[in-house]
Amino acid sequence: MSEAVLQESDDLIGHPAVRQIVTQLRALDSYGTYDTWPDFKVLDPMILTKERRREIPVVGDPDETTISRLKAYYNAIAAGIEREVELMAVPVVNLSHEGFGKGLILVGRLVVLNRTLRDVHRFGFDSLEKLVEDMEKQVAQAVALVNAHRDVAEM
Amino acid sequence: MSEAVLQESDDLIGHPAVRQIVTQLRALDSYGTYDTWPDFKVLDPMILTKERRREIPVVGDPDETTISRLKAYYNAIAAGIEREVELMAVPVVNLSHEGFGKGLILVGRLVVLNRTLRDVHRFGFDSLEKLVEDMEKQVAQAVALVNAHRDVAEM
Repeated sequence: MSEAVLQESDDLIGHPAVRQIVTQLRALDSYGTYDTWPDFKVLDPMILTKERRREIPVVGDPDETTISRLKAYYNAIAAGIEREVELMAVPVVNLSHEGFGKGLILVGRLVVLNRTLRDVHRFGFDSLEKLVEDMEKQVAQAVALVNAHRDVAEM
Repeated sequence: MSEAVLQESDDLIGHPAVRQIVTQLRALDSYGTYDTWPDFKVLDPMILTKERRREIPVVGDPDETTISRLKAYYNAIAAGIEREVELMAVPVVNLSHEGFGKGLILVGRLVVLNRTLRDVHRFGFDSLEKLVEDMEKQVAQAVALVNAHRDVAEM
């Protein structure tokens, strides 16, 4: 991967959604690679600028760290939902070897998020702003669903 | 695996639930191994008698054919649900390498089946009767859920 695009001084690094995804990325780092890294460096590979995207082959199998980033993203959204609705939110990421699959979040018997995944080896966001925007949108939609169908979410 | 426990003459081989699981097993047989096999032989490894269970190690990784059998089972239940409720039912089997995970079936935004999987390398049923009984129970519970929350299932 090319030079870091994020900086320690980036304002959004302190945003609650970003804090949550950093926590989740560190939680999935079973070999302790990130232990000595500052947050902006842990987060940096989530951002795929046009230049970075060009460097990734169009077709390919996702590697383990890319899958970890995808899982951290779903875990962070689930944590965001839990905080709002005060019910357990369960992320399920189901992938084939080729990087196709489903990203789900379940609250009780309610599917609050259901996304088709493709090209997971190219998973990332144009900018930190886009990442935050996307996460907030996903959480808001899920919370609205839980509020509309609280009986099913509490099953 | 020991000698076949099922026989061609077994009455239950003609049961709709059993027909469905045989169809699903054949659909997942990408190498055509089952092409020349009669149905009872395709179905036979789903039945784990006490003797067969004893032959399987307590701890182990599930092999590909065992996972296929598990998927065929969820696909067959999903097909049974679809027939009853006339809505699409989506099976999701999510497994770790060690054979732990989740078996889900989704109808729209409704989780109609949610089972924790463990010891998948030992997946099987005591008898064909037990298999049919289990499938019918799963389908009936799922159909009841859809009927109780049709609005969520139709989302």
